[in-house]
Amino acid sequence: MAIDNCENLPGQRGPADHERRTQILQVADELFRVHGYRKTSVTDIAKAIGVSSAYLYRFFDSKQAIGESVCALALSTMGEAIRAVSERDASATQRLRDMLHTLLSEGMRLFLKERCIHDIVVVSIENQWAVTEEHNNEIYEAIEKIVSDGRESGEFERKTPLDEVCMAIRVTAAAYAHPVLLSRLGNTEEMETKLAAVTNLILRSLAP
Amino acid sequence: MAIDNCENLPGQRGPADHERRTQILQVADELFRVHGYRKTSVTDIAKAIGVSSAYLYRFFDSKQAIGESVCALALSTMGEAIRAVSERDASATQRLRDMLHTLLSEGMRLFLKERCIHDIVVVSIENQWAVTEEHNNEIYEAIEKIVSDGRESGEFERKTPLDEVCMAIRVTAAAYAHPVLLSRLGNTEEMETKLAAVTNLILRSLAP
Repeated sequence: MAIDNCENLPGQRGPADHERRTQILQVADELFRVHGYRKTSVTDIAKAIGVSSAYLYRFFDSKQAIGESVCALALSTMGEAIRAVSERDASATQRLRDMLHTLLSEGMRLFLKERCIHDIVVVSIENQWAVTEEHNNEIYEAIEKIVSDGRESGEFERKTPLDEVCMAIRVTAAAYAHPVLLSRLGNTEEMETKLAAVTNLILRSLAP
Repeated sequence: MAIDNCENLPGQRGPADHERRTQILQVADELFRVHGYRKTSVTDIAKAIGVSSAYLYRFFDSKQAIGESVCALALSTMGEAIRAVSERDASATQRLRDMLHTLLSEGMRLFLKERCIHDIVVVSIENQWAVTEEHNNEIYEAIEKIVSDGRESGEFERKTPLDEVCMAIRVTAAAYAHPVLLSRLGNTEEMETKLAAVTNLILRSLAP
């Protein structure tokens, strides 16, 4: 999702002044990264732009609505990368490997390198914002596509119910995609070793 | 580990007045549960007992030393339950199922029902206290015993390196044993469904 294409996110209202909306999200994104979501107020955002808080409320219902839009933009990059891998022209086995690796690398980029995105995603998970749910669904759909393809091609077993297999992979992968666990998994080399071991375990479980 | 058998924990020093030491840990445990570890000071603990802070420092180096002892006692119950399951007289398959279930139920008891133990264990993980490391080793050893037994009995495959298999199960099980993830897994029924799916995935991966 591009930053100028977010008019359908929840809690937003007219006027449909795209440029202004984009500017608000860019400034909010920057303030959330530097100071964290919790410590940034709507007044802070308004001040940084040089307008009144009342003016900002013409574009967004609340600070949460701004937060959800910023969070959706951050997660959409990861979601798109995951979807792209699931649709790639490769064996299901290779795509599953690549997808789990993308989850780890995108997770590290978002939650470790861009530190305050970590903060806003944690707030989003804690408060069960719709954006987190949508992101989880995107990941689930990518897993489902790969496993279904692998069952068709004969790479994976077909006895276990598809939804049980996909849910188990989703929960297992949560150890990599979850911001709180990511920040405690250890150094990059250690994470790669753990990811390889878990990926191999998942692939062994899928053997026909 | 019983509460009166903790003289070998780190950061403790003489005099070896067991009764007093036990009392300090009991009072600290209570204060940590009610107010949280971060908000409880050594002065608070001393006041609750009716002694001076200086007196407490004759038994423990620091607030952290008290925290580590309280945390070790809380985790030891879980560690003992896990070890007991691994040594039970049952098939490796059954013991692995039971062990993963014990991780979930003990985790829920510790981190969801005893809310402020959650807090002290999170502090312990964040600060990499030795007690967390020891607890992780206990769980790893239980997994290793069960997988080794299952390889000997012919229940599990033997091609994959033992340490890779055990590490992968350990990381996968972290989704159940980790206090932060536990608190966000959803309701009990949902957790049981997810646990069953992941347990089945692990067992399929172990098929010979």
